[in-house]
Amino acid sequence: MHALLTDRYELAMLGAYLREGIAERRGVFELSLRRLPPNRRFLLVAGVDRVVRYLRDLRFTDAEVDYLRAQPDLRDVMTDAMEGYLRAFRFRGDLDAIPEGALAFEAEPILRVTASLAEAQLLETFLLGVINTETRVASKAARLVLAAEGRPVFEFGARRVDPLTAPYAGRAAYIAGCAASSCEQAGLTFGVPVSGTIAHSYVLAHVDDGEEAAFLRFAESFPEGTTLLIDTYDARRGALRAARAGSAVRAVRIDSGDLLALGRDVRRILDAAGRPDIQIIASDDLDEQRIRSLLADGAPYDAFGVGTAITLTPDAPTLGAIYKLVEIEDRRDVAVPVGKRSPGKPSTAGAKQVYRRLDERGGFVEDTVRLADEAADPHPDPEALALLVPVMRSGKLVRDLPTPAEVTREARERAARSLRSLPEALRDLGEGPSLPSPVLISPALSAMVPRGD
Amino acid sequence: MHALLTDRYELAMLGAYLREGIAERRGVFELSLRRLPPNRRFLLVAGVDRVVRYLRDLRFTDAEVDYLRAQPDLRDVMTDAMEGYLRAFRFRGDLDAIPEGALAFEAEPILRVTASLAEAQLLETFLLGVINTETRVASKAARLVLAAEGRPVFEFGARRVDPLTAPYAGRAAYIAGCAASSCEQAGLTFGVPVSGTIAHSYVLAHVDDGEEAAFLRFAESFPEGTTLLIDTYDARRGALRAARAGSAVRAVRIDSGDLLALGRDVRRILDAAGRPDIQIIASDDLDEQRIRSLLADGAPYDAFGVGTAITLTPDAPTLGAIYKLVEIEDRRDVAVPVGKRSPGKPSTAGAKQVYRRLDERGGFVEDTVRLADEAADPHPDPEALALLVPVMRSGKLVRDLPTPAEVTREARERAARSLRSLPEALRDLGEGPSLPSPVLISPALSAMVPRGD
Repeated sequence: MHALLTDRYELAMLGAYLREGIAERRGVFELSLRRLPPNRRFLLVAGVDRVVRYLRDLRFTDAEVDYLRAQPDLRDVMTDAMEGYLRAFRFRGDLDAIPEGALAFEAEPILRVTASLAEAQLLETFLLGVINTETRVASKAARLVLAAEGRPVFEFGARRVDPLTAPYAGRAAYIAGCAASSCEQAGLTFGVPVSGTIAHSYVLAHVDDGEEAAFLRFAESFPEGTTLLIDTYDARRGALRAARAGSAVRAVRIDSGDLLALGRDVRRILDAAGRPDIQIIASDDLDEQRIRSLLADGAPYDAFGVGTAITLTPDAPTLGAIYKLVEIEDRRDVAVPVGKRSPGKPSTAGAKQVYRRLDERGGFVEDTVRLADEAADPHPDPEALALLVPVMRSGKLVRDLPTPAEVTREARERAARSLRSLPEALRDLGEGPSLPSPVLISPALSAMVPRGD
Repeated sequence: MHALLTDRYELAMLGAYLREGIAERRGVFELSLRRLPPNRRFLLVAGVDRVVRYLRDLRFTDAEVDYLRAQPDLRDVMTDAMEGYLRAFRFRGDLDAIPEGALAFEAEPILRVTASLAEAQLLETFLLGVINTETRVASKAARLVLAAEGRPVFEFGARRVDPLTAPYAGRAAYIAGCAASSCEQAGLTFGVPVSGTIAHSYVLAHVDDGEEAAFLRFAESFPEGTTLLIDTYDARRGALRAARAGSAVRAVRIDSGDLLALGRDVRRILDAAGRPDIQIIASDDLDEQRIRSLLADGAPYDAFGVGTAITLTPDAPTLGAIYKLVEIEDRRDVAVPVGKRSPGKPSTAGAKQVYRRLDERGGFVEDTVRLADEAADPHPDPEALALLVPVMRSGKLVRDLPTPAEVTREARERAARSLRSLPEALRDLGEGPSLPSPVLISPALSAMVPRGD
């Protein structure tokens, strides 16, 4: 399943490793960020569950192997041995990960894969794609949730991204604290609450009778409660019509115009019409800055709908995670630290662990990245929490996997605790002063000298 | 298949349309852009083939219908009638589209769906997601291809996006003129040429013998020709080692540092080592501006590898296409134009066609958007090309679908012609003066007064 959602070079290297007889050397790869993207003071981890299920299920189908065999550029490595290797492929390595919903920062391995060189190499593209996408979305959605200060944020950015990724984006947004996603498949696959109301087309389709009739009809179809979009023609007139459409109307949504002025007017109109109970939802290309400024100005919004900002994160479209070999067995089966030295893009050698220090009330204080080998780099604080936890050992899950919906719920609960644990400075959404990094590097790790060259 | 890759509100509206008895009214929806994204002077259409196959295959599975039936918020519309409607669902409408690989601009319908209101509404989210993604990627990749001035551009941005979208991104980039994609699945599904060489990890894995031995071994595995990544430790030393690794080495890649200075030095080193035949490929977060500036400075690169810039298009992360109802039957079965009037976000009423004028050498001159009803808005120039072509009629394909690989090849050929047809001003990659729009609106279309409200 999906074995070819990978880059050609992973397969080219795998073929070379097999030919050279080094495919089974044990290696450690870590997935991390060199630095946080602009406008981010923390990451909220998401995507690990998908990685785990991928590793559990990864196989090459006959069609996939046949395709590879037919590739001229792979001719010299696609031997019978490699074909046999691919047909028998199972992930048999170890996975350690920072759990979904936990905070992470630059320089911290989010995933650590310890496996044969060939296996660990092959995974690179898929693991990066998943974490780069889901952690990016969750980290951004968390900012929206913080900006909304307790008001619900509805994610409805499916239409801005490839439809196949929309359920995962909806899940990541829900983990981060969004109240719901618009994407039905996020509901079916992950148990994410799904919500949505009407589009302008619904109002336009009632060309015979106009907006007021459209509102009445829609409210009749949803007598248990619904939200009406009121700006197809004129939001103020729409508000009055919504107020008259009966008690099923629980909220109105405004999707254009001067959201501050309109929000105030619509609130007045609804109140004057005897409907102070109707809530107002704002949308229209909102991001955390705009939500914060609306709330700071006292705009009377009860909830926010956010699309593009969550699923495409235009202020930081790429997370930029990397997946690097940090340790490899040499020919005497001794694990040695390795790292590249490319200018501006060095990698830090050695398998790592991250220790988190919290204050007495559970507030985040700081992280220290250390060598994973505790004998070589013991942590002085026995209370510090080791963030990377064992997920798979020798290809087997350390715990039975709960359902996707259960895993998602757990991650959401962890994320809520994570956001509560953030100190004021790290919650800052962008205009605050730049901060020293909350990540320390242990002296032993700093002193690592990679072998090689 | 994938019927729930849609937003909740599409299903809520569908349910309401059915209850109200207006689901079968014929409507026309158009997918277009209000304006081009920043830094774009044209779009290159991609994604239509996927839309077509989706419309051909769209069905609701039992699990999907059961899930919808269990949703509390849909309780009052998920009647037996709606359940029956979903179980029997087939797309039976018409699709007109600008073909993949053709140029498009703002205000032009890329897709036009003419179908029952219920059907056409349901499609909104998926169609937007696909075109917003694939046309965004193809339009950006075309800029990279133009910047490279005939040198190959290799797309390798799979790791930056959700793995499930990577094959589609690889396809869109290939349509736009990229030489190959790194994504294996793009090869298997769409016949896109796939390429790739080694990562830094390959060199690091040869910790016993170092980079030179790694290069020799890799060249032995790929005697027909390969590319070596030379900046793991030091690109200049790497170049010399690559030059010594035998005739299988056809190219080297530099992925970090001062690409101008390094490129020149590496060229000199290779030439001095008697290997003027070895080509040099640049990568490292390249975009069209950086490629153009490298080439303007005479950097001796023969090809470029581009990841993030193509798949995530950070300079314009969202295409912002919209899908709007422009015409609907009223209760007397008369089709009437409709459009919303939301401030700053109005939609243009009336079903449309786009006519393209070319000069005698096939160069693009201008487009005119007119009413699709030729009797109401005849085009004065019989030579002008109608861009939207019939793809489906009453749910049936107008022509048998070639294989995905054949469709992709056709689109790539059309894209090459499209890019050749661009006048100098539209090829400009960003620093030129702002231009008048190449899109005219016919007087009859401008004069349309939408009904409603």
